[in-house]
Amino acid sequence: MSSSIVKPIYFFDEADGNNRALLGGKGAGLAEMTKLGLPVPPGFIITTDICEKFYEAGKRLPDGLMDEVRKSIKKLEVSTGKKLGDAANPLLVSVRSGAPVSMPGMMDTILNLGLNDQSVEGLARQSKDARFAWDAYRRFIQMFGKIVLGIDDRQFEKEMAGKDLNDEKVLRKVAASFKSLCENTGKKLPDYPYKQLELAIDAVFRSWMGKRAMEYRRQYGITPDMANGTAVTIVAMVFGNTGQDSATGVVFTRDPETGVKRLYGDYLVNAQGEDVVSGKANPSHIDQLPGQMPDVYSQLQQVCEKLENHFNECQDVEFTVERSKLYILQTRTAKMSALASVKTSVDMYHEGLIDKTEALKRIDPEGLEQMLYPRIGPQVKLKPVAAGVAASPGAASGVAVFDVARAEALGRRGEKVILVREDTKPDDVPAFFLSAGILTTRGGKTSHAAVVARGMGKPCIVGCSQIEIDTESCSFAVAGKTIASEGQKITIDGSTGRIYLGEVPTVDPEITSEFKEILQWASEMKAIRIRANADTPESATLARKYGAEGVGLCRTERMFNQHDRIAIFVRMIMAEDDDERRKALAELELLQRSDFRAILKEMQGLPVTIRLLDPPLHEFLPKEEELMMQIFELKSSGGPRTESEMLRREKMLRRVHELSEVNPMLGHRGVRVGLTFPDIYEMQIRAICEAAAGLVKEGVKVEPQIMVPQVAIVNELVAVRHLFESVKREVEHRHKIKLKILFGSMIEVVRSCLVADEIAHVVDFLSFGTNDLTQATFSFSREDAEAKFLPFYLEKTVIPANPFQTIDQKGVGRLMKMTIEMSRKVKRDIEIGICGEHGGDPRSIEFCSAAGLNYVSASSHRIPIAILAAAQSAIRSSKDSRLSRFLSD
Amino acid sequence: MSSSIVKPIYFFDEADGNNRALLGGKGAGLAEMTKLGLPVPPGFIITTDICEKFYEAGKRLPDGLMDEVRKSIKKLEVSTGKKLGDAANPLLVSVRSGAPVSMPGMMDTILNLGLNDQSVEGLARQSKDARFAWDAYRRFIQMFGKIVLGIDDRQFEKEMAGKDLNDEKVLRKVAASFKSLCENTGKKLPDYPYKQLELAIDAVFRSWMGKRAMEYRRQYGITPDMANGTAVTIVAMVFGNTGQDSATGVVFTRDPETGVKRLYGDYLVNAQGEDVVSGKANPSHIDQLPGQMPDVYSQLQQVCEKLENHFNECQDVEFTVERSKLYILQTRTAKMSALASVKTSVDMYHEGLIDKTEALKRIDPEGLEQMLYPRIGPQVKLKPVAAGVAASPGAASGVAVFDVARAEALGRRGEKVILVREDTKPDDVPAFFLSAGILTTRGGKTSHAAVVARGMGKPCIVGCSQIEIDTESCSFAVAGKTIASEGQKITIDGSTGRIYLGEVPTVDPEITSEFKEILQWASEMKAIRIRANADTPESATLARKYGAEGVGLCRTERMFNQHDRIAIFVRMIMAEDDDERRKALAELELLQRSDFRAILKEMQGLPVTIRLLDPPLHEFLPKEEELMMQIFELKSSGGPRTESEMLRREKMLRRVHELSEVNPMLGHRGVRVGLTFPDIYEMQIRAICEAAAGLVKEGVKVEPQIMVPQVAIVNELVAVRHLFESVKREVEHRHKIKLKILFGSMIEVVRSCLVADEIAHVVDFLSFGTNDLTQATFSFSREDAEAKFLPFYLEKTVIPANPFQTIDQKGVGRLMKMTIEMSRKVKRDIEIGICGEHGGDPRSIEFCSAAGLNYVSASSHRIPIAILAAAQSAIRSSKDSRLSRFLSD
Repeated sequence: MSSSIVKPIYFFDEADGNNRALLGGKGAGLAEMTKLGLPVPPGFIITTDICEKFYEAGKRLPDGLMDEVRKSIKKLEVSTGKKLGDAANPLLVSVRSGAPVSMPGMMDTILNLGLNDQSVEGLARQSKDARFAWDAYRRFIQMFGKIVLGIDDRQFEKEMAGKDLNDEKVLRKVAASFKSLCENTGKKLPDYPYKQLELAIDAVFRSWMGKRAMEYRRQYGITPDMANGTAVTIVAMVFGNTGQDSATGVVFTRDPETGVKRLYGDYLVNAQGEDVVSGKANPSHIDQLPGQMPDVYSQLQQVCEKLENHFNECQDVEFTVERSKLYILQTRTAKMSALASVKTSVDMYHEGLIDKTEALKRIDPEGLEQMLYPRIGPQVKLKPVAAGVAASPGAASGVAVFDVARAEALGRRGEKVILVREDTKPDDVPAFFLSAGILTTRGGKTSHAAVVARGMGKPCIVGCSQIEIDTESCSFAVAGKTIASEGQKITIDGSTGRIYLGEVPTVDPEITSEFKEILQWASEMKAIRIRANADTPESATLARKYGAEGVGLCRTERMFNQHDRIAIFVRMIMAEDDDERRKALAELELLQRSDFRAILKEMQGLPVTIRLLDPPLHEFLPKEEELMMQIFELKSSGGPRTESEMLRREKMLRRVHELSEVNPMLGHRGVRVGLTFPDIYEMQIRAICEAAAGLVKEGVKVEPQIMVPQVAIVNELVAVRHLFESVKREVEHRHKIKLKILFGSMIEVVRSCLVADEIAHVVDFLSFGTNDLTQATFSFSREDAEAKFLPFYLEKTVIPANPFQTIDQKGVGRLMKMTIEMSRKVKRDIEIGICGEHGGDPRSIEFCSAAGLNYVSASSHRIPIAILAAAQSAIRSSKDSRLSRFLSD
Repeated sequence: MSSSIVKPIYFFDEADGNNRALLGGKGAGLAEMTKLGLPVPPGFIITTDICEKFYEAGKRLPDGLMDEVRKSIKKLEVSTGKKLGDAANPLLVSVRSGAPVSMPGMMDTILNLGLNDQSVEGLARQSKDARFAWDAYRRFIQMFGKIVLGIDDRQFEKEMAGKDLNDEKVLRKVAASFKSLCENTGKKLPDYPYKQLELAIDAVFRSWMGKRAMEYRRQYGITPDMANGTAVTIVAMVFGNTGQDSATGVVFTRDPETGVKRLYGDYLVNAQGEDVVSGKANPSHIDQLPGQMPDVYSQLQQVCEKLENHFNECQDVEFTVERSKLYILQTRTAKMSALASVKTSVDMYHEGLIDKTEALKRIDPEGLEQMLYPRIGPQVKLKPVAAGVAASPGAASGVAVFDVARAEALGRRGEKVILVREDTKPDDVPAFFLSAGILTTRGGKTSHAAVVARGMGKPCIVGCSQIEIDTESCSFAVAGKTIASEGQKITIDGSTGRIYLGEVPTVDPEITSEFKEILQWASEMKAIRIRANADTPESATLARKYGAEGVGLCRTERMFNQHDRIAIFVRMIMAEDDDERRKALAELELLQRSDFRAILKEMQGLPVTIRLLDPPLHEFLPKEEELMMQIFELKSSGGPRTESEMLRREKMLRRVHELSEVNPMLGHRGVRVGLTFPDIYEMQIRAICEAAAGLVKEGVKVEPQIMVPQVAIVNELVAVRHLFESVKREVEHRHKIKLKILFGSMIEVVRSCLVADEIAHVVDFLSFGTNDLTQATFSFSREDAEAKFLPFYLEKTVIPANPFQTIDQKGVGRLMKMTIEMSRKVKRDIEIGICGEHGGDPRSIEFCSAAGLNYVSASSHRIPIAILAAAQSAIRSSKDSRLSRFLSD
């Protein structure tokens, strides 16, 4: 240690409270509060650098560290007038973890260190409370045994069970039995306090790489550059459990649920901190403190005000009252609900504490999702009966219905229905419209049910394999036990994936004035446009309300899935001759025209990107097994009408067979269908042109954009463009007007990225379809990957994040950058956007913004999230550029 | 015309016979022969430039062209002493097409032009043969009517049917009726010879863009830079049909079937060229000519020798004898069989005519395939009963068997069997080994049957949808008619896709001494190494015999598919506990060890790249429907043993269900399986290490290389490398030896190309799997694409070539180049190769060679093709660099 120039230890009163990287959050907070003159017990911090050295040395404390610790303890002994391990006036300390980024509860802490068979008597004498002293001792042995010696806590709990812990004598026995528990392991609880200290420091450092901590960091994306290890904070103990004039508690400077400016928290009289946290006792609300300890309360109020004014953030403060004296043991930025976070940020701006930029930065965009959907109220403590994959957010209650036709019938009668199915298919979509929520037992986040429900903004849980559906008896079972039959009310929470029996109270989303204000600021601040993925006029309305600047993806096939259309579409696929097909297409054209008209009108003045048919035709037909089953049943039933029914189905079965594919994702779809069955695209293009022409003649400003999916080869686009130009000319000629319709390509096939220069010559705009592009880049489908191996990959950090949630910058991102560069070289002002689910992911929005995209398109329901994320990204990048200007000066 | 500086017309005696681009092949040949003093009738050539102008002007003859033609005809009249359209001594001409690249029969020709009601009488008088003159006239009207006026030839044939064409009077009537046929169309056969000429020239130019010609150019990859249009050759007519002292014929300077140096060809006495070609008369063999026309024959011999010595290539010569005078009407490079091409090239080298480089350049690598497999003899004129996709070359005869078990049983008894199935799966592979050939009615070139058969070198036809199999009666039908029952002998030709009834005589492949010599030269010349895709010792032996320099891809899963192994592998997948699985793995390890031992020993001194398991596990299990059917049958049968059988199948069905995937190509396979079921890779790695260790101890030099499939993320490789190193250390330790085993990655996932720098840090070599890479780059699977839309894309030239046959340079090639560049930046000497079917494709080999790959790996059976293609590529690139040196001097 002596050879190193690194200072390993800082006392609170000498440390720089801004240096969280070195001191950890807890240490920095204590240092800062000490500097502010707040009542903090004395103590010191072993830095995170030492934690790094600990791991570099193969999990060994650096040589010389304990000498430094010893010196620091001596200093502490001087300032407290107590002595570690002393039999008369013992100094006790807590040894606590504290990383630069808050990881609450994920690492270890040991309290009451310094106690042994001698010093416990000293504590008893000094505190004049032998029960307290022995209770502290047994707590220490228990913690040390669990954390340092690795003893299962249940062993200690078993020892204590049924014993009267208010009796000193009992506590002495408990302590003795705890000690022998420790010895049973072959290890020993050292009597010597410095040995205790050494082992405790070692244990805290080790907990940095503990399973819980690593998992937490992975979950929250905490990388080594954000936190390189934990600091260890060693503080002189103060006790909230020395009588009725002592207490311990936690207080928030504002209400973390609502954001209202008032103290909020709990405390316990005559208790130690862990009692509050463990929930074993019922704490009192902070509002009661003025009645019990008026001086302490007013001191606490002052402390909170001082802290907020200093940090300009709502604080979560840990305090202890020892014999009427208030100590502050920790302060940190409060974790708040989205609602509270929005309100606090706006309030603090108006209070003059922070500027708009700061206010925007503080809100977690993902968290906003809570505010945009109905949710299970925070007061509900019900246990869910099962959980699946949270596929589309929001909570909904309704009667469970296992059959699509019945769901439709009930829905039409105004009943709230939860559709419960093994999986769903396009045929079932009409029932989606009439259901309050969807629950399936199969599939992942990209299964049919998930994608459609998300598009409609309906709550949806998929892949709930805990549930077994019995379609015969119309019921479902969990773990072999039937728990709900058809008609039973259930509640699903698509934000958490949880399923409840009965009707659970939900809270409706509210757009508060603060929320509106924040969105306003964010819109002004952001540097990239936000469009919506919207397939229906309703969805477009919502998007516009939230501030979308156009529609970036309108999926025309969703329209075919509606009740009145699917049958016509199937007729078109099954047509025996050109005449029959043309008739079906003509009907579809009229329907599509009115669809497009409604969306274009809703978004007047803003661009609307309409994607031509994408899925393979077989997706619109019933499944093979289903048809076989039906034919089998018809065969065994007989009867007058069955013959033709059977022929119809046999014909359809043949067509299904013809169209079937081994890997549908890599098959006959998108522009490949467009070119081989050109009538379909022609019909769609004509419907768009006619809808636009009609509105233009009424004086409505429209900006339709036609987008071709699955392009791999420039000639595919050349052919469709040719078709588009000729249909447009024809419509223009008929209506004697000029139409301004842009023509563009999805970039979702890898090859389209590689020939982006060729493509740029043929189109007006490009739009990345990052869902498919990610699948093609990784050669794994989201559905199969999420079901089979992606969870394992994430757990083992084979891959740092799910590439279907956040753009894989190294792979997919590289293709995107190539595309942008190559296409802009050909057409400098070509408009490039992104649609697909990454468009609503904050980290992906940041990437898109930096990569120079013109817009991102997100699901209508996620528009506020996208706007906020875009604003934050703009703030960060302007800072970056300020920083880089500064560095280059 | 006068304003243009382009000379539109060249006479044979003034043209440069080397300028095929300008004169077309036919014109250039005539010019060259004229210069050599050979007996060529006088004539002139309208250049290909004029054809280009014709199309630039919207299919109009350039202004002034006909004036130039008129001048040229006048010159021709002077040199022949005849006059176009003259009633006394008429000049007749032929108007023939001729592109710079030979396109035999693809464009139009008109003979006897210049005849009309007047000049026909002149011809009769001049030839003293009225029948001949009127026959010439009716032929002219017929050709003109068909080609210029677009009349269906069958109409003319109907007019002639049953008439005596030796009777002048009849011929007069026929000519008259032909003329009125022309008038019926509303068009008219012009009398005026210059009008005839103008229309004929126009028609020849038009035929350049005729359907046949365009299709031919597409098929043979003839691009505009290779041929920009057709020339028109106008030659004074000579007649082989003016009596018994006249004749017409075609002669090859060497035998085009065998390459033996002797004249080869046919002729007809008293006939016109089209009679030989049309096959209406039975021509005599050229050997009979000396007996009939000894002088002519010896002249012809001299001409042929002169031509060969001049062109240094075997020639295909068209001649006519008019009244004992020999005329040469055309010469061109002869199209020959692969056998002949090889022999001729080697012979000509030994005759001192050409050097080795030239000899190598002349052989079409793809053509060699004919020589490497048994084939249907050229003399067989049988009609096939059906045709499917030619999936694995070679011909085989045997009894049709519709059941895998029966095929195995018969095969084991030594019977030759053709396995006929709707499709096949891994379970069926044991039957493959015991069958002479495989025929399926479903699937494309990458279906299971196709891939496995190709790997084994067994003839295979897939996707023969014309055939309907009736598994109940064990027979197959074509167009509803049963044509073969089980046991019927059939013959399949996997090179052409044709199926014959009965045992058709086949010709075995032979490795001639010339073939060996050519391969030797090619091996010396090539600049890239050639390895083989070989999964069995037999295949490795063959590869080595052909000159392979190692194994580039040994697919371990093929081994599991063998009869004795699949059951063990299934047991491993179905294992209920670790113990059971370990037992199965231990059995597999012993089997794999002996597999690897045999291959490594066979290839001693050369590298052998072994790919760890690639396919998803469900590929090894029976299909879902099949199991359901079996369970259904067992349920209805009952009986003592069925209970456990049923349970076993139900268990398997559950497992199949668990493992099933929506898009198996994008699912749980390759390294993804390797990481989630690590015992499998561990077993395979240990088997490789143990096999190598055993051989090393026996003093055998081995170079195993371990290759990981489906890598997308560098951490996947890190994990497998870790496993590999630890197993290797363990084996080294046990045997007390050091093993040299390289570790590498397949590059078949797009992302692996994008992070090639990261990957290069972890591996010793890379190998492109261009099959999968192409699928991922285009986002279409070969199977689905070839079944659904790729044929349409090729027909419409949406894409210039099938990217699964020839590497798509713009897309896939670009990824490959990026990978090579990025990985060599990290590791300068990293070995990079390509396996997959492109490794045997000549155009792809050229690309790989230019891109700087170290080797290509091709199917064992295609090694000679690959060696030759590599040599040709080296020759071309050395020429290129010589050229570029020349240009930079």
